[in-house]
This record gives sequence, C-alpha cells and structure tokens, in this order.
Amino acid sequence: MTFRSQLKIRFGDIDRAGIVYYPRFMHYFHVALEEYFAGELGIEYHEVVETHRIGLPTVHLESDFSRPFSYGDNIEVEVSVLNVGRSSITFGYRVFKQGESDPRITGHNVTVCLDMDTFKKMEIPTWFRQQLEQQINMEKLCGSTRH
Amino acid sequence: MTFRSQLKIRFGDIDRAGIVYYPRFMHYFHVALEEYFAGELGIEYHEVVETHRIGLPTVHLESDFSRPFSYGDNIEVEVSVLNVGRSSITFGYRVFKQGESDPRITGHNVTVCLDMDTFKKMEIPTWFRQQLEQQINMEKLCGSTRH
Amino acid sequence: MTFRSQLKIRFGDIDRAGIVYYPRFMHYFHVALEEYFAGELGIEYHEVVETHRIGLPTVHLESDFSRPFSYGDNIEVEVSVLNVGRSSITFGYRVFKQGESDPRITGHNVTVCLDMDTFKKMEIPTWFRQQLEQQINMEKLCGSTRH
Amino acid sequence: MTFRSQLKIRFGDIDRAGIVYYPRFMHYFHVALEEYFAGELGIEYHEVVETHRIGLPTVHLESDFSRPFSYGDNIEVEVSVLNVGRSSITFGYRVFKQGESDPRITGHNVTVCLDMDTFKKMEIPTWFRQQLEQQINMEKLCGSTRH
Repeated sequence: MTFRSQLKIRFGDIDRAGIVYYPRFMHYFHVALEEYFAGELGIEYHEVVETHRIGLPTVHLESDFSRPFSYGDNIEVEVSVLNVGRSSITFGYRVFKQGESDPRITGHNVTVCLDMDTFKKMEIPTWFRQQLEQQINMEKLCGSTRH
Repeated sequence: MTFRSQLKIRFGDIDRAGIVYYPRFMHYFHVALEEYFAGELGIEYHEVVETHRIGLPTVHLESDFSRPFSYGDNIEVEVSVLNVGRSSITFGYRVFKQGESDPRITGHNVTVCLDMDTFKKMEIPTWFRQQLEQQINMEKLCGSTRH
Repeated sequence: MTFRSQLKIRFGDIDRAGIVYYPRFMHYFHVALEEYFAGELGIEYHEVVETHRIGLPTVHLESDFSRPFSYGDNIEVEVSVLNVGRSSITFGYRVFKQGESDPRITGHNVTVCLDMDTFKKMEIPTWFRQQLEQQINMEKLCGSTRH
Repeated sequence: MTFRSQLKIRFGDIDRAGIVYYPRFMHYFHVALEEYFAGELGIEYHEVVETHRIGLPTVHLESDFSRPFSYGDNIEVEVSVLNVGRSSITFGYRVFKQGESDPRITGHNVTVCLDMDTFKKMEIPTWFRQQLEQQINMEKLCGSTRH
C-alpha cells in the first residue's frame, strides 16, 4: 500500500469558477510530500532543510487534471518515489476523491539536491539515498503502477 | 514584441529554503494570463468567466525551472498562445528576471473551454477563436520562438 | 473541553523572515472554523454556503500575536462561539503550540449572516441559532475563559 | 497625498462565496506595505530584512470590512505610519475600490522591530526612525485623518 495524505478542499482554495484554483494542487502536492517524509521516509522535511541543510527545489513539473474538485471534497494525495539519480529525485503524485479508485489528478516533479549553504547542486547523501531506494523497492514489491 | 506582465517577488512568496515556493509560480502564470487577456486579447478574464460564462480549467501543465528567484526580484512573465484546438487552448509562459535575456522558468498549460452553466466541454466561440488566432499570427510574424 | 483543530506549519507558510507569514494565521483560523462546523456544530461549512445559501463574511477582525511559530510546528487552533446577535456571530480563536498551555495567538472575528442569493444581511435562522447558543452554553458550563 | 498601492482582485483570491477570501486582504496589506517602503520610505523592504537584518513581526492586528470586493475590481491600498514607539511601529491601511471616496476596508497592525540574528526585540535604529517620523509629519501636514 502506498502512502496517502488525507486532505480536504478548503473554502479559500476555490476560485471564481467554483472549482479548486489549480496552483493549489501544487501546494497539496507539497503538503503531501511533507507528510510522506515524516510518515514513510522517517525524517521530517523541516529537518532535511534545517538540520541537514539540504534543499530540494523543483526543476521540472508535469501534471494532468482529468476531473475538477469542489469545495468540501475529501481527497487523498498519494506520494511515491519514481526515480533516484545522482543528485535528483523524482516524486510522483496521484490525487483521488475519497472513495474513488481512479485518480483525478496525476503528476510528478523532479527535484535536485542543493547544499543550502553554498546553493550548489550536491550528490544525494547515502543515508537519504538508502531510504529513497528502499521506498522504490517496497513500491515495486507491492506492484503499484504509477506514471 | 510579446506580452509581458511585470510582477515582483513578495515577502510571503518565499518558502523555508529562502526561495520562491514553487506553487507560487503557477499563481504568477495565472495573474499574467489575466493581464494578457485584458492587455492583448481585449477582454477581461473576469468577463470571460462572468459575462460569457466560459471557464478555462487546466487539464495539462508542464514547467521547467532552471534558476530560482529571491525575495524582491522584479520579474517579467511573458504569455503567449501556443495552440488553439477545437475546444482547447494552450498558453505558454516564460519568466525572466528583469534585465536578463534568458528565461529562468518556462512552462505551458493546456486549458479546455467549459460551459460554466452545464460544466460541459464546449467549442471555442468564434469571437474568442478569432482573437486567439490573431495572437498566434502576430507572434509568428514577430518571429518569437518559444517552447 | 473546547474544540481544537490540529494543524501543522507548512513549508510554504513561512516568509522571508523565517517565521509564519501572518496572513496565513487568518487562513488557519478559517480552516479551523470549517473543522469546527463539521465537528461541533454538526453541519459542514460548505453545506451552510451551498445548501442553505448563507454566507458569513467577516466585518471585524482582531488578533494578538505574542510569540511566532516556525516551520514544522504542530499547532492546535481552538475555536469557540463568543457571541450571537440578531444577524452577527462572533467566533474566537486561540492558537497553541502543541504541548504548551498558553496560546501564542488569540483573536476573534465578527461575521454577518448574508443571504447569498440577494447578498443582503439576514437574521440567523432558528436551526442555526440554536446550535450556536448550545455551543456558548456548553463552553460556559466548562468554565473556559476566552477573550 | 498619502501613498496608495494599485492592486487588482485576482481569480484565485475569490472564495466559495464569490467574494475575496478575507485572509487575502492581510496579504494585500503586506504587499502595499512593501510598496510603501520602496516608494515612500526610500528603502526596499527586502533590504530592511536582508541587509539590515531587521524583522517586523505583527503583534496586533485590527481590521473592519464594510463592503466586499469582487473578482476584477481595481483597488487602491493606502498605507500610512500611525505611530512610532521605542521599538514598535503601527501602520494604517485603507482599501478603496478605484473611483470611490470611502474606504471599504480599514485596518492597522502594530509591528515590533526584531534583531533577526538574535530574534530579540530591538530599538528602532535612528536612520529608520527618522524616515518614519518624517512620514507622520508629512501626513499631518496634509491633514489626512485616518484611524
């Protein structure tokens, strides 16, 4: 079973057209990612940033939206590690309306490990790489298919 | 010369890593799009939504980020029409730091024309299509190259 | 025991000074209020707006901030009904860092019942008033003191 | 003539009730304040934070909302210095719909000068105090009355 963050569409997330303002989904992606770090990777995202001084800026983003969400919807944002490179990590996201089996939104972002003190690209540290690769293996074992 | 919206990175746009929280760029894309409607297409975006009852939800989004922005940076968000289909419109974005010639961020989103009363996909109305295609032609004439 | 919504300070809530951007607290107030409706008043806030067509715009807001919050802090936002007038409702908020007994932020906002179809002020409907007054009585019974 | 920042209500600023989500006004206050620093006080807000290492967290906030704003409204946010204490500065805000003479929103926030390296309260430095007091005097001369 892959990790899912439980969120709810809020009053202020809605735009003039009565559906979720699409930039809010990138915020949901990030909130779910933060939950994923604490819940699955065993380290709080703020410790990665503040203790280990590692930043993870996004260098590429892609997302598909098949059906909109409305105010009050309970949603589940699934997070997974799709790829681990020398200094890059790709995270995948799928957003479900609670109770539905097909995601309404899918997406992924490529992030790059940055030394926060020099603002230079750095190799993923071993302790971090091991946890990320373990996640990939577990997700493979569970046979989940994600784009 | 293609349209550019002049914006400024604000205090609250910055995240814990000291750079712009990436979902804010999608908000900038949208703000620049709203400016583009008023300034280039000759119709306010809110009139499209409220008077013509046309929604333009995003169905696909892609973006590349090559260099980060910091608090206080003056930015220019270039907007263009990349493609006009039967009911879909693709808008392109390039974000420059003022004074630089290479964009730090590029992106595009595919939107679909929606009848706001039925929430069903609709063909782009003729008056709207004409204005969009005129923009594409003008941009071709000016020889701008954008992804 | 008064109602508390469990929230967490997110990566994107932080401003350039490294603490929570203060307008985000008004967003937390609203998120907690939405939770309060579902959890205590027995009606989802979106049903108030969408089914009953009642809006609750804020006409007055006051807040005191004694200590800042940092990224990653777990917070509890306490919500209570402070006053129920003919058409106005005053909600109180206290924000705690988890584990602390003194709130770091206190505040309240006066809202006015609005008929969403005419956008005119309306009397609070009886079913709603009863639930609100029941909350006030329960909070009095529990002897909580709040500003 | 007091300083006014020209802003526009954006698509994503609207909530489910079709009017501006009220926490967005605190964001507008801050954006206007940043403009005020650059335009009137002669120093960019980000230089105050980053070069002078002074933070200005809000310790008290009050605001009154008499009429709502809708999507597409052009607004003017007037900023003024209401009071300068030993280490505190009170800023006043009035939000007008363009063309109207009465503000729809008024408010003020009390901020405290913070040494960003020690996170301790500090006296307002002389160079900063002089500019703030000059503003108060100019505003008095112009006879503007603000709460």
